[in-house]
Amino acid sequence: MLINCNRPGGFGGGAEKDFISWGILGKLPFSTRHISSNLHSTERKRREMAEYLVYLAPISSVIALLFAVYFAKTVMKYEEGTEEMQEIAGAIRIGARAYLRRQYRTVVVFFLGMFAVLYVFVHFGYLNVFVPWAFLSGAAFSALAGFIGMTVATQASSRTTYAARSSLNSALRVAFAGGAVMGLTVVGLGLFHLSFWYFLLNWVYRGMEETARIQIITSTMLNFGMGASGMALFARVGGGIFTKAADVGADLVGKVEAGIPEDDARNPAVIADNVGDNVGDVAGLGADLYESYVGAIVATCALAVSAGFGLQGVVVPLAMAGIGVLASIVGMRFVRTGEEASQGELLRALRRGVFVAGGIIAIVSLFVIAALLGWDNVGMYFAVLFGLLCGIGIGLITEYYTSAQYGATKTVAESAATGHATVIIQGLSVGMVSIAPFTFIIVLTIIASFYVSGGAGNFSLGLYGIGLAAVGMLSTLGITLATDAYGPIADNAGGIAEMSHQEPIVRERTDALDSLGNTTAATGKGFCIGSAALAALALIAAYRDQVILIANDLGLELMLDFSVLNTNVLAGLLLGSMLPFVFSALTMTAVGRTAQKVVLEVRRQFREIKGLLEGTSKPDYAQCVDICTQAALREMIMPSVIALLSPIAVGLIFGVEGVVGLLAGSLLSGIALAVFTANSGGAWDNAKKYIEEGHFGGKGSEAHMAAITGDTVGDPLKDTVGPSLDILIKLISMVSLVFASFIIQHHLF
Amino acid sequence: MLINCNRPGGFGGGAEKDFISWGILGKLPFSTRHISSNLHSTERKRREMAEYLVYLAPISSVIALLFAVYFAKTVMKYEEGTEEMQEIAGAIRIGARAYLRRQYRTVVVFFLGMFAVLYVFVHFGYLNVFVPWAFLSGAAFSALAGFIGMTVATQASSRTTYAARSSLNSALRVAFAGGAVMGLTVVGLGLFHLSFWYFLLNWVYRGMEETARIQIITSTMLNFGMGASGMALFARVGGGIFTKAADVGADLVGKVEAGIPEDDARNPAVIADNVGDNVGDVAGLGADLYESYVGAIVATCALAVSAGFGLQGVVVPLAMAGIGVLASIVGMRFVRTGEEASQGELLRALRRGVFVAGGIIAIVSLFVIAALLGWDNVGMYFAVLFGLLCGIGIGLITEYYTSAQYGATKTVAESAATGHATVIIQGLSVGMVSIAPFTFIIVLTIIASFYVSGGAGNFSLGLYGIGLAAVGMLSTLGITLATDAYGPIADNAGGIAEMSHQEPIVRERTDALDSLGNTTAATGKGFCIGSAALAALALIAAYRDQVILIANDLGLELMLDFSVLNTNVLAGLLLGSMLPFVFSALTMTAVGRTAQKVVLEVRRQFREIKGLLEGTSKPDYAQCVDICTQAALREMIMPSVIALLSPIAVGLIFGVEGVVGLLAGSLLSGIALAVFTANSGGAWDNAKKYIEEGHFGGKGSEAHMAAITGDTVGDPLKDTVGPSLDILIKLISMVSLVFASFIIQHHLF
Repeated sequence: MLINCNRPGGFGGGAEKDFISWGILGKLPFSTRHISSNLHSTERKRREMAEYLVYLAPISSVIALLFAVYFAKTVMKYEEGTEEMQEIAGAIRIGARAYLRRQYRTVVVFFLGMFAVLYVFVHFGYLNVFVPWAFLSGAAFSALAGFIGMTVATQASSRTTYAARSSLNSALRVAFAGGAVMGLTVVGLGLFHLSFWYFLLNWVYRGMEETARIQIITSTMLNFGMGASGMALFARVGGGIFTKAADVGADLVGKVEAGIPEDDARNPAVIADNVGDNVGDVAGLGADLYESYVGAIVATCALAVSAGFGLQGVVVPLAMAGIGVLASIVGMRFVRTGEEASQGELLRALRRGVFVAGGIIAIVSLFVIAALLGWDNVGMYFAVLFGLLCGIGIGLITEYYTSAQYGATKTVAESAATGHATVIIQGLSVGMVSIAPFTFIIVLTIIASFYVSGGAGNFSLGLYGIGLAAVGMLSTLGITLATDAYGPIADNAGGIAEMSHQEPIVRERTDALDSLGNTTAATGKGFCIGSAALAALALIAAYRDQVILIANDLGLELMLDFSVLNTNVLAGLLLGSMLPFVFSALTMTAVGRTAQKVVLEVRRQFREIKGLLEGTSKPDYAQCVDICTQAALREMIMPSVIALLSPIAVGLIFGVEGVVGLLAGSLLSGIALAVFTANSGGAWDNAKKYIEEGHFGGKGSEAHMAAITGDTVGDPLKDTVGPSLDILIKLISMVSLVFASFIIQHHLF
Repeated sequence: MLINCNRPGGFGGGAEKDFISWGILGKLPFSTRHISSNLHSTERKRREMAEYLVYLAPISSVIALLFAVYFAKTVMKYEEGTEEMQEIAGAIRIGARAYLRRQYRTVVVFFLGMFAVLYVFVHFGYLNVFVPWAFLSGAAFSALAGFIGMTVATQASSRTTYAARSSLNSALRVAFAGGAVMGLTVVGLGLFHLSFWYFLLNWVYRGMEETARIQIITSTMLNFGMGASGMALFARVGGGIFTKAADVGADLVGKVEAGIPEDDARNPAVIADNVGDNVGDVAGLGADLYESYVGAIVATCALAVSAGFGLQGVVVPLAMAGIGVLASIVGMRFVRTGEEASQGELLRALRRGVFVAGGIIAIVSLFVIAALLGWDNVGMYFAVLFGLLCGIGIGLITEYYTSAQYGATKTVAESAATGHATVIIQGLSVGMVSIAPFTFIIVLTIIASFYVSGGAGNFSLGLYGIGLAAVGMLSTLGITLATDAYGPIADNAGGIAEMSHQEPIVRERTDALDSLGNTTAATGKGFCIGSAALAALALIAAYRDQVILIANDLGLELMLDFSVLNTNVLAGLLLGSMLPFVFSALTMTAVGRTAQKVVLEVRRQFREIKGLLEGTSKPDYAQCVDICTQAALREMIMPSVIALLSPIAVGLIFGVEGVVGLLAGSLLSGIALAVFTANSGGAWDNAKKYIEEGHFGGKGSEAHMAAITGDTVGDPLKDTVGPSLDILIKLISMVSLVFASFIIQHHLF
C-alpha cells in the first residue's frame, strides 16, 4: 500500500480500490468532511438513533455488573462444605490472594514507571494528556476483572465439591454461577470502562466540531488498550508460569516418583497446583479476555472514522457489545440439566446457553446495523455473522484435534505405544497440521467480511467490516467466558474432593464437570486465538489510520509503502515473525526452571518431613506456593519487557513501515504458534486420558509413561505459551499505537 | 508497493524511492531503453568486458568437472579394503543405487506429466517454447548431481575405513576427495547448465534487439529453476524419509530393545541405515544445493534487467560463480593435516580451505564488479562481501547452538537429568531462541546489501544487491559442499569399520572424522538456510519484475498493491506462513510411520531368524532397504504435490498479489521453522553425545535414556523437515514464476 498522507477526496464509496494518488496535495478526509453540514434526513435519523443507542453500552455494563453480583450471591448462598473442605479451600484462597497481591505489587511499580514515561511523552507533545491516565485505568480494570473472577472462583470451588455430594446438577449450578461472575465481570467492567472514557472525552471536547471530536476520542481510546494488554500479559505469563511449574513439579515427584495419586494431600505441591489453577486459568484468563474484548471494540471504533461512518460507526461496536451482554445473560438462564445428566447432556446444556445468546445477537444486530448504518450498509451485518460463525468453526476444529473421540488424538495415543519419542513427534505433527483448517477459516472470514462490507469498492469499509467480525465473535463473551471459567472451578472442586477424602461418587461428579471443562476450555482457547487474529488485524489497520492522522496533524508529508518487498517492511516482517518463537522459548524455559525448583523442594519435604508419605504428618504447602510465586514474578518480567520494547526499537530503526511489518509478522507466526501449541498440548493431554481409560495398555503401561511425557511437554505449551501469544500480538500493536507520533518523527531509515 | 504496469520513466538513479506514479500511461523501461544506442565509451568498455567475462562460467564449469574426475580417480586409486569391507560396501552401494533407480523411475513419470502440462501452457501461449525443455533439463541435471556424488561417496566410504587403518590423514584425504567430487560436480554441472542455456538462447534470439534478448533469456532461465527445485524436493523428502526411518527404526529396536551397539552387523536395519546416509545426506544434499546455486544465480540475472545493468548485470553473477569455482579448487589444495592431528586441527584444516577460497573471491570480485558495473557501482561489491560474511556468521551461530562446547546444548544435556519431558522442552526452547540471532544477521545482510547497492535511490538496484549477496554466499559452494558431503562418507566409513570388526583405533579415527563431519554439517545446514532466505527474496523480487514484464507484453493494465494490508496479500501471507507447518507435519509423520514399519520388521527378524543375536546367522538386510524404499517413494508424493499446487491454487483465487503474499509468508515461517528444527535437532544430538562422554551419569543412565528420546525426536526434524523447508520456499517461487502469465490472466479476486 502506497500512501500519501496529504490525499485528495474522501473515503466514501466509489468503484475503484482505495488507491491513493501520488504527488497531488490535499487534505485528509477526517478534517474536511463536515458531517453536520450535509446531513440528509435519513442520515439525521441515523444520527439520532446513534445518540440513543450509545447508552446501550453503559446500561448493559451496569446490568452485567448487577447480574455478576447476583451470581456471586448465588454462589455464596451454597453451603461452604465440611470443615476439612473449608480448610483446604482456605489455604488455596490465601495462596491465590497472596500471589495476586504480590503480582500486583510488582506490576504496579512497572505501571507507575510507564506512567511517568508516558507523561514525559505528553510533556513533549507526542501524546494526548489523557493517555497516561487511560493507560493506568486500563491496567487497573484488567487487574480488577481478574481479581474479582478469582475471588469468586476460590469461593465457588469448595461449594461445588459440597454440592456434588447431593447431585451433579447442583454442582453444575454452583460452578457455572462462579464462571458467570467472571464472564459478566469482564464484559461489564470492559463496557463500563469504555463508556466512562467515551462520555468523559465527549464532554471534555464538547466544544469541538463533531468529526474532529470523534477522531480525538477514538484515538485516545485506542491508546488506552496498552494498559489492559500489558496487565493481561503479566497476568498470563506470570500466572501461566505459576500454574504449570506447580503442576509439572507436583506430577514429576508425586505421580512419577512417589507413586501417589493426583491431588493427594500428602503432596507438598498440591496446594500450589490448585492455587495455580486460580491465578493462571482464572485471573489470567480474565485479564486476557478483558483485553481482547476492549481491544477489538476500540479498534473497530477507530476504523469507523476512516470508513466515513462518523458517530454511527463508533456506536455500532459499542451497541453490539451491549446487546451481546444482555444476550449472554438471557443465555445463562438456559444452562441447566437433569439431576443425573450424562456428559453429553452437560455439554449440550452449556452449548444451549451459548447458542441462545448467539441467536439473539444474530437477530438483533441486523436491526441495530440497519438503524445506524442504513440498509445499504447491511453487508456489515454479514461481517458480524461471519465473525460469530468463525468462532463456532474454530471451536469445532479445536475439538476435533484435541478430543480423543476423533482420529487425531487417537493417533497420538497410538504412537505412545512405541515410546516417548514417537508420542512427541506425533503430537507435534497434530498441532502443526491443525494450523491448516484454522488458517482456512480465518482467511475465509477475513475475505468474506471484507467483501460483504464493501471492501472491494472502499478499502476502509472492508477493514471496518473485519473489525466488526472480531466484535461479532467476541459479543457472546459474557457466556462463553462463563463456560470457560467454570472449568478451573470444577477442577479445583475435584482437588478438594480428593484432599478431603470424599466418597468416590463426589469425585466422579466433579470429574464429569472437569472433563467437560476441558472441552469448553479447548473451545475457549480456539476462540481466544481467532478473536486475537481478527482484532490484531483491525489494530494494524487502525495503526495505519492513526499514522496518517498524526502525520496530517503534524503537517508531515509521509511516503508510506507497506509492500512486502519494501526492505523496511521486510525487516519488520522477519523480526516480527521471529518474536513469538523467542517469546515462546523464554516462557517455556521459565516453566521448566521453576518446575525444577518445585521438584527439589517436594523431594526435600518427602525426605525430611517424617511420616509425610504415611499421612501422619502434614507437608509445608506454603513453601511450594512461595517458590512458585517468586519465580513466576521474576520470570514474567523478561518476556513482557521484550514485547514492550520491540515495537519501539523496530520503529526507531525502520520507522512506521517497519512497525507495520513487525505487527504483521508477529501476527502470522504468533497465530500459527498459538494454534500449534494449544492443539498439540490438548491432544497430548487427552491422549493420556484416553490411555488411562484402558486403551493401549492403560494406566501404568509403557504407553502410559510415554503419554505422561507428552502431557508434561504439552502443559507449558498449551497453558503458558499459547495463551500469552494471543496477548503478545495485540500488546505490540497497542504499544505501536501509543508511540506512533514519536516514531513518525524519529526514525533511522 | 503499488505498481502500475504502464509506468513512465526508467529505473535509473534518481533521489526518490521507487514510487511509481499512478494513472499516467507509459511504457516499461525494459522496452524503451535501447542500451545499444546510447553507449558512452566507458559503458562500451564494460560491455566488451562482459562479452569476455561471460565465458568465465563455461570455462570454470569444465575445469570443475575435470577436477571432479581427478578427485574421483584419486578416490579410486586407494585400496578398496578387506574382502569383508568390500562386501559390506557393496551391499550399501547396491541398496543406494536400487533406491535411486526406483526414485528416478517414480519421479520421471511425474516430470514427464509436468512436461506435458507445460506443453499445453506453451500451446496456449502462456509459456515460452523452451520452458518445458529447460524444466526437464533442470530436473535431470539436479538428479545427475546427486547421482554422481552418491556413486563416488559409496566408493569412498570403504576406502576411508581401509585408509584409517594406516593413518588419520590418509583417511581424511580419501573422505575429503569424495566430498570434493560432490562439491565440484554440483557447481560444475550447475554452471554448465546455465551456460548452455545462456549461449543457446543468445544464439536463438540473435536477431533480437539486445535489451529484449537479455530479457527473454533471463526470464526463460528463471523458469527452468522449477525442474531443479522439484527434483531437489523429491530427493530431499524421499531421501530424508528413507534415512531417518531406517535410523530411528534401527536405533529403537537395536540400541534400546536388543541392547546391541550402533552399526552392529546383527541389526537387520543397519544396511538400510547406511544406505539412507547416502541417499538422503549425499544425493539429497547434492540435488538441494544444485537447486540453491542455480536458483540464486538466475534470480540475480533476472533482477539485473530492471536494475538497468543490461548484459553486464547478467554477467556479474555468472562470472562471480565462475571465480568461486576456481577459488574453491585452489582452497581444496589447502585441506591437509599432520599424521595424527587433533580434532581441532582437522577442523582448522577444513576451515583453512574455505577461508582461502572466500579470500580469493573477496579480492577478485572487487575487480570483476568494478570492471563490469563501474566504480560508481562498487557498492555491489560490498553486497557480495556481506553475503560471504553472512554465511560465516550463520555458521558460527549454528555452531554455538548445536555444539556441546557451549551453553545451549549443555542446558539440554542437563535437562535430560530430570527426564524425557524436560529434555524435550529445553531442546524446543534452544531451537526457538536460535531463530533470533539468525534473523538479526539475515535482516542486517538484507538491509546492508540493499543500501550499499543503492537501494535507497533506486529500489531495483537494492534488490539486485540482495541477489548478489545470495550469490556471494553461495560462491564458495564448491568447497563448503565438499566439507559438508565428506561427513556422511566418514559416517559410513565408521559403520563399515564396526560391521567388519576393525581394531578400535580404526573406529576411533573414523569417529574423529565423523564427529567433525557433524560440525561441518551443522554449519552447512545454516548456510543452506541463509542462502535460501536471500535467494527466495531475490526470487520474489524477480517474480514481481516478471509480472510487470508479462503484463506489459500483454498490454494489460494491472493494478498491483503488495501492501500487507491488502486482503489478497494478507490471505497469501496467512496461507503461506501455514504451509511450512503443514509440510513439516506431513514429512514428520511420514518418518514416524515408516520407522514403525522398520521396527516391526527388525523385531520380526530377531524373533524368527535363529542365531541372529548370537551372530551365527545373518539378517535379511534387503527387506529393510525395501521397506524404506517403498515407503519413502510413497510418502514423498503428497508433500511435494502440495508444494507444487499451492501457489497455483492461491494464484487462481487471490491473483498475483496473493501469490506474493504466499511467497513472503512461506519465506517467513519456513526460515524460522528451518532454523528451529535444525538447531533443536543438532542440540539434542550433541547433548546425547555429551552425556555419552560421561556427563550427568553417562551411558545407560536415566539421563542418557531421556537424551536418546530427544535425539530420536530431533532426527526427523533436523534431517528431513528442516532441509526440505529450504527447498519448499524456493520451489513455490519457481512454480509461481512459471505460471505467472496464466495467473495474471485468470484469477478470482
